[in-house]
Amino acid sequence: MRHIGVLTGGGDSPGMNPCIRAVVRQAIGYGMAVTGIRRGYAGLVENDMQPLDARSVGGIIQQGGTILKSQRFPEFDRPEAQRQALRNLNQRGVEGLAVIGGNGTMKGALALERQGFPVVGIPATIDNDVYGTDIAAGVDTALNTILLAADRIRDTASSHQRAFLIEVMGRASGYLALYGGLAAGAELILIPEQELGLEEIAQDVERAYVRGKAFVIIIVAEGAKLKAQEVADYLEAQNIGYEVRISILGHIQRGGCASAFDRILATRLGTAAARLLHQGEHGKLVGLVGNQVRATDLEEATSRPKPLDMEVYALARAMAI
Amino acid sequence: MRHIGVLTGGGDSPGMNPCIRAVVRQAIGYGMAVTGIRRGYAGLVENDMQPLDARSVGGIIQQGGTILKSQRFPEFDRPEAQRQALRNLNQRGVEGLAVIGGNGTMKGALALERQGFPVVGIPATIDNDVYGTDIAAGVDTALNTILLAADRIRDTASSHQRAFLIEVMGRASGYLALYGGLAAGAELILIPEQELGLEEIAQDVERAYVRGKAFVIIIVAEGAKLKAQEVADYLEAQNIGYEVRISILGHIQRGGCASAFDRILATRLGTAAARLLHQGEHGKLVGLVGNQVRATDLEEATSRPKPLDMEVYALARAMAI
Amino acid sequence: MRHIGVLTGGGDSPGMNPCIRAVVRQAIGYGMAVTGIRRGYAGLVENDMQPLDARSVGGIIQQGGTILKSQRFPEFDRPEAQRQALRNLNQRGVEGLAVIGGNGTMKGALALERQGFPVVGIPATIDNDVYGTDIAAGVDTALNTILLAADRIRDTASSHQRAFLIEVMGRASGYLALYGGLAAGAELILIPEQELGLEEIAQDVERAYVRGKAFVIIIVAEGAKLKAQEVADYLEAQNIGYEVRISILGHIQRGGCASAFDRILATRLGTAAARLLHQGEHGKLVGLVGNQVRATDLEEATSRPKPLDMEVYALARAMAI
Amino acid sequence: MRHIGVLTGGGDSPGMNPCIRAVVRQAIGYGMAVTGIRRGYAGLVENDMQPLDARSVGGIIQQGGTILKSQRFPEFDRPEAQRQALRNLNQRGVEGLAVIGGNGTMKGALALERQGFPVVGIPATIDNDVYGTDIAAGVDTALNTILLAADRIRDTASSHQRAFLIEVMGRASGYLALYGGLAAGAELILIPEQELGLEEIAQDVERAYVRGKAFVIIIVAEGAKLKAQEVADYLEAQNIGYEVRISILGHIQRGGCASAFDRILATRLGTAAARLLHQGEHGKLVGLVGNQVRATDLEEATSRPKPLDMEVYALARAMAI
Repeated sequence: MRHIGVLTGGGDSPGMNPCIRAVVRQAIGYGMAVTGIRRGYAGLVENDMQPLDARSVGGIIQQGGTILKSQRFPEFDRPEAQRQALRNLNQRGVEGLAVIGGNGTMKGALALERQGFPVVGIPATIDNDVYGTDIAAGVDTALNTILLAADRIRDTASSHQRAFLIEVMGRASGYLALYGGLAAGAELILIPEQELGLEEIAQDVERAYVRGKAFVIIIVAEGAKLKAQEVADYLEAQNIGYEVRISILGHIQRGGCASAFDRILATRLGTAAARLLHQGEHGKLVGLVGNQVRATDLEEATSRPKPLDMEVYALARAMAI
Repeated sequence: MRHIGVLTGGGDSPGMNPCIRAVVRQAIGYGMAVTGIRRGYAGLVENDMQPLDARSVGGIIQQGGTILKSQRFPEFDRPEAQRQALRNLNQRGVEGLAVIGGNGTMKGALALERQGFPVVGIPATIDNDVYGTDIAAGVDTALNTILLAADRIRDTASSHQRAFLIEVMGRASGYLALYGGLAAGAELILIPEQELGLEEIAQDVERAYVRGKAFVIIIVAEGAKLKAQEVADYLEAQNIGYEVRISILGHIQRGGCASAFDRILATRLGTAAARLLHQGEHGKLVGLVGNQVRATDLEEATSRPKPLDMEVYALARAMAI
Repeated sequence: MRHIGVLTGGGDSPGMNPCIRAVVRQAIGYGMAVTGIRRGYAGLVENDMQPLDARSVGGIIQQGGTILKSQRFPEFDRPEAQRQALRNLNQRGVEGLAVIGGNGTMKGALALERQGFPVVGIPATIDNDVYGTDIAAGVDTALNTILLAADRIRDTASSHQRAFLIEVMGRASGYLALYGGLAAGAELILIPEQELGLEEIAQDVERAYVRGKAFVIIIVAEGAKLKAQEVADYLEAQNIGYEVRISILGHIQRGGCASAFDRILATRLGTAAARLLHQGEHGKLVGLVGNQVRATDLEEATSRPKPLDMEVYALARAMAI
Repeated sequence: MRHIGVLTGGGDSPGMNPCIRAVVRQAIGYGMAVTGIRRGYAGLVENDMQPLDARSVGGIIQQGGTILKSQRFPEFDRPEAQRQALRNLNQRGVEGLAVIGGNGTMKGALALERQGFPVVGIPATIDNDVYGTDIAAGVDTALNTILLAADRIRDTASSHQRAFLIEVMGRASGYLALYGGLAAGAELILIPEQELGLEEIAQDVERAYVRGKAFVIIIVAEGAKLKAQEVADYLEAQNIGYEVRISILGHIQRGGCASAFDRILATRLGTAAARLLHQGEHGKLVGLVGNQVRATDLEEATSRPKPLDMEVYALARAMAI
């Protein structure tokens, strides 16, 4: 292969720029040319592309977001859109594609592969919803951003004897809430994978109060069955002894300069993707399994759910005493 | 005076702990004893107090929140509560009080002074709503926290071509929104002191789009007439070309380790308060005016509104081109 | 005036980019064209310039360093170099210059003004060595960077019962050491403006040990008479009870994203400079005096030393009990 | 086992406090009592101990350093010291010990185990020199601190066209330099495990200059054969086109609030150690292998060197184009 393309799709993640940099520089190291596709699949269909060289990706390793931009583009489901994309790629002489993003973006990658175009996927999303990698690029940075916020809220909670509900991202997965909650020393963690009832929650908060805790932090995943407001209203009505407050972290979780872990992970995955394409291997997703980079079939990666390690949930419970 | 008390009232601010430290150490330097009152006016009435020495305030200069805790306590309006407070102070031999907090807390301080008990007020609140000081301790840290969030959101906004509304604290005052917006390079700033209509806002956003801006940041004060959601709905309906998103920063603005500016300001104000009490001067608020520490009568400080410098608003507009 | 230039000189400071942005956008607001001169006076002489518009300075408010680059260029002392600079400016139709930097850079600005070319100076340096402003753009960010380091060192110092000497920048001025030391809660501060003897220092450290302090932080200005190593060797030899360690902060103090204070200050000063040039006023330095922006004659600003407020030194001593 | 002890030894690491918290809370969850030994092996011999309960370790997960303090204590090599330690432990009824630290501390742990006292080791050191774990608690935080500094230095380097040598910790191991250099996007990395000559280095820097790089970052491990100063002098003499500067990061690398990764790792390792002791298993070190917690014999862990993955070195070289 002498010429590859690279794109970022779906919601942005702090791991995307170090990924792009790694794909580009490794590909150039192999003597391949690289074309950057802007705005994800939208740019692929609308022919919004530009050549990238080693200098184009200088100084981006510590920039949040994605220099290639990203855009949701549900129209890419349609075969006409995919055909247009292939036509644009062929006209420019692009022979393979590194696709960077989350679960939805990988589905688009699989569609192209099925159309006969060689693709390798790289998981970079804060949602950590991609099967085939223990962790996606960007998750570690998002966890650290959650701590930045939670540590600040703890100052305030502890000064006012409060129970604080902090809502973090994660519609389908409780990953950020679970690991963020463990790292923040949260009393309780509410995630889609493990339902708790209002009474159970109130009992836990009451036990914390009786044990003498100055404050209580509850981390709530966006996708948890009970919403933060609902829990807050119930707790307030129980008059446990803590004032109740809510904080919704929102989009700050996606931004920021990538952590050391994410820069290294993104570099390992990005170079692995360039290597596979160079060797003519494709239809794969590169991921971190244990501490090794492994390739998984895109078919498998996009069809299997990514389970949450419930031992970590038990661990968080054990620490909240 | 040989023995003073110190308390923190109202919402917490990152300037409170360095203030407490300064009051305590300066007072000890003058040979005075110091009693810490816990939970603001509630602790004053409920006799929740403890002696403080130089070591009690070691290592707190970089801690957010307040080691003395704080609590809203509207009951302190009642003369019986105030009498109980005086009785508790007299029984412990406390002869004067340094009161740390915002506008509401200063009103309580004035009530005690009127009852004949010597009080000096120290402005420490992120709301910057206290007359008699250019800036209260904690405001600078809150502005930096707002930037921490806004810079992260900018990463995401710029990757997705978005208009982002960021709601910051400030029910009565647009201070945080105005200065935070200026520092964040916001396109627009919505504050209670300056009303804008929906159409005007949409025109501004449209102009930014036409000028080629990759994204737009709008900072909205909690107390602005138009709420963030309302503006977002309107902008979304105009189809300007940006996706519209909202982020409500909330309580993270109160926490965090105090900035250099706030530690220095809090130290200057706290020591000035101890000096005044030591010299038998009271019924005053110490504040920063220009770069000098000045005392203002508590009567005046609690009765005059703190105006916003609208030249800064014009400056922010001039920068948003 | 219809066309101005802007340059940054001397050591870089985090306040430079927000300054450039403010000069450019305010000038454009007045209808003036703006030329950016690269690499300070070197670029002026070597004709390394480019037009700047409102978009050229987008997204730089939070970038450390200077997009115009900077370079020491002692050759600018020579009249031939100055004449060449004037010739280059005239050929491009540049009618006035905003010069951003520290004390050395202001001397070059004065030289141009004396040659008859209209110049306004803007103090942006972490050294805070410019007369005519209470504080230069970049100083606040540098102080916060010093705290970031000092707070980390405190963790280690407190775990190991250590006396830590932290050397900060400041060859001619003890400003960063003094204010950084006050904010860090340092036991001792060694600055050029106030000499202490080795015995005196050792006695202070011994007193801290006897009072039960878990650790001691000593901030040393680069330009202090006693060097960090010298003090460390002496303290080590006294066997006071603390292990002694040194940390030299170095260049990290110049970098980083500007603080809220610095972005606001730089914006105020930069716009004021553009306004003066627009109005045909020049030969001035714009500075912050109290909380007002004031203009000082460049002659005066470059000929008078900037004194350090020794009351702050006394304050730091009073807090170290 | 009904009663265990916990201590931290050697240089401090940001992973220590979350480790202590996890050991204590998990042990209490199993119904065991916990005694904290202060100042490492020194406190063990000098009987400096105190009971710990669940509240004693509240709010420490985000504190740098170690609440139990640490101290180098080479005297622990002597059998008399070890016997005194055992006597102190027996008198308090302590039946097992969780030992937190680096390679040197694990050697002390093995000595106690050989004397017949049950010990489990937990690797927490920024040096990452412990065999039996992919990564020790604290390393991830140290890497992020290195980036905090390197990103700031990059601002300055890029404004002045400089080659910057940044010296990071690591006397025996190049781990921090290698992974820190990869994450910082360094041009060159000098480590004990891979020698480069001065000429080779200068050629690399020259190539970077010719390729048009605005600046060059070189990360140097403390233990590299060529010292930073030596390399700087050589490069300066070659007149390549970059100014040359050095920054020695020093002790700031040990401090700071633990990252999400380190808090989670420390919690997993600490609870695993408590579980092993509870089950009567000992003479082990708990470590992270892949993404599983595994126990290794202390004999093996202390006798085998921890190799560096030189593929990562090749990766860093490939990225520096």
